[in-house]
Amino acid sequence: MAKIITIGREFGSGGRELGKRLADELGIAYYDNEIITKIAERTEFAEGYVQHVMENGPSALLPITIGRSFYMGADPIVEQNNAIYREQSNLIQEFAQKSDCVIVGRSADYILRDRHPFRLFIYADMEHKMERCKWRAPENEHFTDKELKRHIQDVDKRRGRYYQFFTGQAWGDRLNYDLCINTSNTEIPELVKAVARLVQ
Amino acid sequence: MAKIITIGREFGSGGRELGKRLADELGIAYYDNEIITKIAERTEFAEGYVQHVMENGPSALLPITIGRSFYMGADPIVEQNNAIYREQSNLIQEFAQKSDCVIVGRSADYILRDRHPFRLFIYADMEHKMERCKWRAPENEHFTDKELKRHIQDVDKRRGRYYQFFTGQAWGDRLNYDLCINTSNTEIPELVKAVARLVQ
Repeated sequence: MAKIITIGREFGSGGRELGKRLADELGIAYYDNEIITKIAERTEFAEGYVQHVMENGPSALLPITIGRSFYMGADPIVEQNNAIYREQSNLIQEFAQKSDCVIVGRSADYILRDRHPFRLFIYADMEHKMERCKWRAPENEHFTDKELKRHIQDVDKRRGRYYQFFTGQAWGDRLNYDLCINTSNTEIPELVKAVARLVQ
Repeated sequence: MAKIITIGREFGSGGRELGKRLADELGIAYYDNEIITKIAERTEFAEGYVQHVMENGPSALLPITIGRSFYMGADPIVEQNNAIYREQSNLIQEFAQKSDCVIVGRSADYILRDRHPFRLFIYADMEHKMERCKWRAPENEHFTDKELKRHIQDVDKRRGRYYQFFTGQAWGDRLNYDLCINTSNTEIPELVKAVARLVQ
């Protein structure tokens, strides 16, 4: 049976590291930022714009209910967002068809639901997410603790809105995942071995 | 390091089976219903009464806010519940001190928080929980689907209230657990091997 693993993750929880290591451990493909690059290639939009839409979601541009009920298909910005989402869906379907893989974010759990992927959700407590962000921050990034916490909350709020808008499901609701992993107290390499055991 | 594993679980999710198999796999002690028997032995209460209190929680007897704010220590029923909860806490501490173990339910994750147990939460979608309940039902139990669903919801509501009352935390909130496992699409023996890999 094909091994398709999707990863939803809170910002700063180490979901991307876990996904990369898991793909390495299983010897399968890994997709994350390359999805944005590919969408930009296939559409008329700049990579930065694609990234902006995927990070901010449709609700940054207009209220969800209006977007859904009245203007869908009429407003050019909504149409652009939908084009990006459609391209993303096609691309993720192609990846999953091509070979076993790990896909991080991008509502891949929902897009691939007919293939029954193994759906992970990675989270951690705020203290650990902040530590992780500080440790990985580029040298020129100087957030105060308060700013950093706010930033983490904002990113996850946007991820939640984006997921909710395109899937109609609640982001992070345990029933949408097969396994939810708290990375606060466990080393990621150890987690990877256990998860690999489960999906092999 | 001591291996103390606590398991919170939705009714019908297979948490008890997973716990028992995990204890067997790791070769460590397993505690579930024996906790009720032991509490009855140590207190003046009948086993049935202990079970009733532990299944229905304090809120079946009086509203939580009243129980907490005004009558704590004055109302004899509240005092009995507290005596049972105190005895349960002592017992769970003794078990954890004695040897490595798996403890199912009874707010053990909270009671043993200073020992940093590995905290599992086991859940499943309603369809699978109903299937599991039917498969395990005694021959003389005849629920309609509607009754069974209601029963499952009621048991979990009581578990949630009990946990919330004594711990001040939300039952099933992912941040209170290290790993949340959806048993809907995975065989429990396979899950056990992966979890064992993680805690070993």
